Amino acid sequence: MNELYMRVAADETWLLKVLAPLLEHDNFLSTLWDIYKQVKAAGVVQDIICGIFRCDYMLHGQSHADAALKQVEVNTTCLAGCCHASHVARMHHHLLQIRGADTSKLAYKPANIDNVVSCLAQAHKLYISSTPAELETTTSTCVLMPVQIRNVNTTDERPIDYALWDQGIPCYRCDWPDILAHTRLTPSRQLMYRHSLDSTMEFEVSVIYFRAGFEPFEYIRFPHGKETRLRLEMSRSIKAPDFLTHLSTLKIVQQALNDIGTLEVFLPDSNPEARSEGMATFMPMTPLDSEQGRSIASEAELAKHYVLKPNLEGGGNNIYRNDILAFVSELPVERLKHYTLMRLIEPPPTQSLLLAGEEMYDGEVISELGVLGTCIWRKTREGAVEVMRNEAAGWTFKTKPAAVDEMSVVKGYGCFDCPKFVDD
Amino acid sequence: MNELYMRVAADETWLLKVLAPLLEHDNFLSTLWDIYKQVKAAGVVQDIICGIFRCDYMLHGQSHADAALKQVEVNTTCLAGCCHASHVARMHHHLLQIRGADTSKLAYKPANIDNVVSCLAQAHKLYISSTPAELETTTSTCVLMPVQIRNVNTTDERPIDYALWDQGIPCYRCDWPDILAHTRLTPSRQLMYRHSLDSTMEFEVSVIYFRAGFEPFEYIRFPHGKETRLRLEMSRSIKAPDFLTHLSTLKIVQQALNDIGTLEVFLPDSNPEARSEGMATFMPMTPLDSEQGRSIASEAELAKHYVLKPNLEGGGNNIYRNDILAFVSELPVERLKHYTLMRLIEPPPTQSLLLAGEEMYDGEVISELGVLGTCIWRKTREGAVEVMRNEAAGWTFKTKPAAVDEMSVVKGYGCFDCPKFVDD
Repeated sequence: MNELYMRVAADETWLLKVLAPLLEHDNFLSTLWDIYKQVKAAGVVQDIICGIFRCDYMLHGQSHADAALKQVEVNTTCLAGCCHASHVARMHHHLLQIRGADTSKLAYKPANIDNVVSCLAQAHKLYISSTPAELETTTSTCVLMPVQIRNVNTTDERPIDYALWDQGIPCYRCDWPDILAHTRLTPSRQLMYRHSLDSTMEFEVSVIYFRAGFEPFEYIRFPHGKETRLRLEMSRSIKAPDFLTHLSTLKIVQQALNDIGTLEVFLPDSNPEARSEGMATFMPMTPLDSEQGRSIASEAELAKHYVLKPNLEGGGNNIYRNDILAFVSELPVERLKHYTLMRLIEPPPTQSLLLAGEEMYDGEVISELGVLGTCIWRKTREGAVEVMRNEAAGWTFKTKPAAVDEMSVVKGYGCFDCPKFVDD
Repeated sequence: MNELYMRVAADETWLLKVLAPLLEHDNFLSTLWDIYKQVKAAGVVQDIICGIFRCDYMLHGQSHADAALKQVEVNTTCLAGCCHASHVARMHHHLLQIRGADTSKLAYKPANIDNVVSCLAQAHKLYISSTPAELETTTSTCVLMPVQIRNVNTTDERPIDYALWDQGIPCYRCDWPDILAHTRLTPSRQLMYRHSLDSTMEFEVSVIYFRAGFEPFEYIRFPHGKETRLRLEMSRSIKAPDFLTHLSTLKIVQQALNDIGTLEVFLPDSNPEARSEGMATFMPMTPLDSEQGRSIASEAELAKHYVLKPNLEGGGNNIYRNDILAFVSELPVERLKHYTLMRLIEPPPTQSLLLAGEEMYDGEVISELGVLGTCIWRKTREGAVEVMRNEAAGWTFKTKPAAVDEMSVVKGYGCFDCPKFVDD
């Protein structure tokens, strides 16, 4: 999946074709695309791209014996929770082992933080080693982490920040609305960052690790959101991820990839077996604006097995089962093309205990496995992809009560968890 | 200093002579000594001892140029703060470096936690490897950490607990009043620990890392305090530290060591230069129950340079300067021998900022450097000391407002800090 998304993100023509129907109608997407056009016009000055991906899976099947992992979605941008997931897995291991319980069947403790940091550190070093001689300076370099303001999730960012410093790589978190004031572009498009506005000390930004800039409100509520993203994308800094990788996380891309032919185009060298194993994790997806789509959305017996997803989301804002009928019946015809129907993943019944806040839930649950990958690649002039890093980087595991549809720990709908293997 | 205290703790005869005048009068000490006599009568079954020591120093002198480090005291038992000290030093390094300040003059970041854990792990392995064949079992071994109840300082214990588990060594914290219920002695005096009283699963305790059992209230307020300590001391487990090492932390021992002759007896093989360097850190100490002592305690001009310390304390409950006069004048004659006068360490004036709670202090401060040492030694039948580990293990650094006499972070009188070297 990592390689698939690296290649998708490198194929501007294909992405544009997929996104075209939405470009004219969606404000957020057209804002982003407009930024990209300006960057293209000025010329892209950094061909190395860094991506930290998470591919989410759920079990699908009547019973555990015949259940298989199915892809929920692929996140290519701003994935949160990898630090929390490590900590909770360590806690579960610890709580079991101090009671003398067998921990051998628990999933290994994931080294998510180390792996993400190792990827950013590699990108940082690549930036330095690939800087042309005429642009070399004595200025220190740093990783810049744009973050959302009033973010409750800093504990998921700080461990990465600190671990970079521990490797001798300066890392600065900067609130999204403050980026413009703290940065400037040199004529040769090096991005310079000042931590203190009272000081003249500057860093040259090697890697921009985006933990902000992926939600519409960051462009609408903050008047300088667009200018901020434009400056960052214009720069020589390695983006983690870049603009096209960000867009490849959208639902409409997942739907377009849901096709064996597309996979062959993007992964011509992979063996057919691996491709069909990958395909086997896909659930059927149908554009709402199609004959089959409209028929599902109008029959309760069909709709109850589907989820309706907005094409521009990476996740969230979904409409489930029979709610689809009422929702679609009120949807203006021209907005049909903004949605995709996906066959619901229906996991076998599983019992567990969840502790959220001060409440304990004891009942049926649904879990989601996130497989992390760290990638670095270079886009050649000819449009080819040179993979410089593609590593499995750990996992996240989230569990929610079965009756709750949306999986969001931050919103209080689920818990970080740790899977335990069972015998067949 | 580590070696000195290992040898002092091994010399029961000398310790008994030093402590004898107090034995009959002090409840706590006589309780402890009574435990030791019972252990002696039954025979000591573990000859390996583990000690984690902290030797505290302050600067003494009119100015920084002529100031020298002077010993405040030596702690051999239950030293708290080594984890906090590491964290605060890391925080100071981080806060300086993100502002681009020079951190090269800051003291190195101490690896206190790693070093303490490495010492306990070595003791754990020594316990296993030195267990006689006829006592070997298949039972798992663990480190037992007796802790005080309602302890606010668990964050200084947990990092050691977790790091031992990370090395595959089970570690259990157990409240002091619960120890009896959770442990039993086998006929061959292996100490067995059950974490859950509902379970029959037992661990054989390799090392007892005392973070409780060193204060009188633990023997007076809890009816089973004495029985608890007796069971622990009776066991084959390696004690960190054992009973005699615990007693060597008392002020009266520090006073008795304040004598070049004593040092020669304990460290006959050390070179005289090292001995006199050690001696140079000692401040003059005088028993209160002596001609010189009584004269200091009755003249304000003399008393103002002294601190009066209870002989049975490792630190705390001191009387400072001219308060000594009123205190001693009301002291019953038979209690004079319970106190020692020590020349006050008078540090050169230093300015700093302290953040305690939500308040900022800006003014003159006094700092105390704690030098950590980790030790393991074996007492041979002939009473000799075989040193198995003697390592510098990091440092702690505490700073308080100059007007406050007692240095206690837990009581809110001081802050953890990080020293910065200055040019001569």
